Amino acid sequence: MDRSHSTQLENLRNKANQMGQHTQKALGLVLQALIEKRIEIFDQVFEIEKQINEWHKQVDEEAVEFIAQNGPVAKDLRTTVALVKINTDLERMGDQCVNIAHIGKDALKRGDDLNLPIIRTMFSLVQEMIEKSLSSFVKHDAKVAERVLMMDDEVDTLKAKVQTDMIIELKKDPQSAEKYLALILIARNLERFGDHATNIAEDVIYTEAGQDIRHGGFL
Amino acid sequence: MDRSHSTQLENLRNKANQMGQHTQKALGLVLQALIEKRIEIFDQVFEIEKQINEWHKQVDEEAVEFIAQNGPVAKDLRTTVALVKINTDLERMGDQCVNIAHIGKDALKRGDDLNLPIIRTMFSLVQEMIEKSLSSFVKHDAKVAERVLMMDDEVDTLKAKVQTDMIIELKKDPQSAEKYLALILIARNLERFGDHATNIAEDVIYTEAGQDIRHGGFL
Repeated sequence: MDRSHSTQLENLRNKANQMGQHTQKALGLVLQALIEKRIEIFDQVFEIEKQINEWHKQVDEEAVEFIAQNGPVAKDLRTTVALVKINTDLERMGDQCVNIAHIGKDALKRGDDLNLPIIRTMFSLVQEMIEKSLSSFVKHDAKVAERVLMMDDEVDTLKAKVQTDMIIELKKDPQSAEKYLALILIARNLERFGDHATNIAEDVIYTEAGQDIRHGGFL
Repeated sequence: MDRSHSTQLENLRNKANQMGQHTQKALGLVLQALIEKRIEIFDQVFEIEKQINEWHKQVDEEAVEFIAQNGPVAKDLRTTVALVKINTDLERMGDQCVNIAHIGKDALKRGDDLNLPIIRTMFSLVQEMIEKSLSSFVKHDAKVAERVLMMDDEVDTLKAKVQTDMIIELKKDPQSAEKYLALILIARNLERFGDHATNIAEDVIYTEAGQDIRHGGFL
């Protein structure tokens, strides 16, 4: 693979990273809207997700073109295939943000307060997960990617706790069922967001170290 | 691409299809366990999912090898990349089945009855969706794939109805909160299962017709 090809691959990687930055931004806006109870911020999230969807198509198309034109092998091929998968994960993370935005919008319209400490903690954890998984991807750093995998367990535990806590609240105050359900669903969406960051981290480890650690391969 | 290469690609396609058959089987078993209230059936689902995870790794690896060895272009390259994505969707569908199995197991342990007509309808719809999406993939039939896209809207509508109905029940009978939440979560998992079938259908349409219809491209 000559220099122009590796530049092409690096450009593709940067495009996916840029897409990831927008996913991060969407997540931040969702949290801000929930904390500040500003419904209009959700509309920005919907706009960003539309852009992410456009990039999703572009990156896919360019990855296929890259393979067709350059016939990459070994690590470059693994990277390109990983890129297609990471692209899908980022697009799905955009979907999770939109899901939370819809839930949040309905909740704010009802006058519900979803700004719980445990939910904020989940947001900051998954924010760190996406940040780390993107940085491991851009810097080819499998070590940082491994950190993401550990954080995923924390997020899972918190999601389970939100569910248990909200069911207790629900039984005490059934007339606010929608609110507690909204919190449970937000926690589940954040957990899925974290799962996608974990997928990205696993793909980075696979590409950089050549190890397939999915489905309990190691760690 | 000579005959041996196209046979290789066809073999890969068959492997993914076989994996899909198992996903279908897992879904059927989950429903059977819920209807017959037989907790032990869920263990079969967990076993099948382990197998699906193994195949997931194999198909990915073989697709990368296929590209490296044959340098496919045009439709064969699109098919191979689509295969990697379909592979991911099938693996996630296995995850949805496992999610429902966990929810179902807890519910049956509590003695809850989750066998509602609307849930059964959702199961048969997504069963048809996975069946059609796999058959469109194996038979290279974009027309059948288009049917899957239409069914997805039906599933979304039913999921929303389950949620509304269960919140009403929840308010009337808050002490059974776990049961109604379980039904809401099963409906959401079925909806996601349907989304993955839709992804597969979209990939088939993209591969066969060369059209990218994701994110509202057509229909």
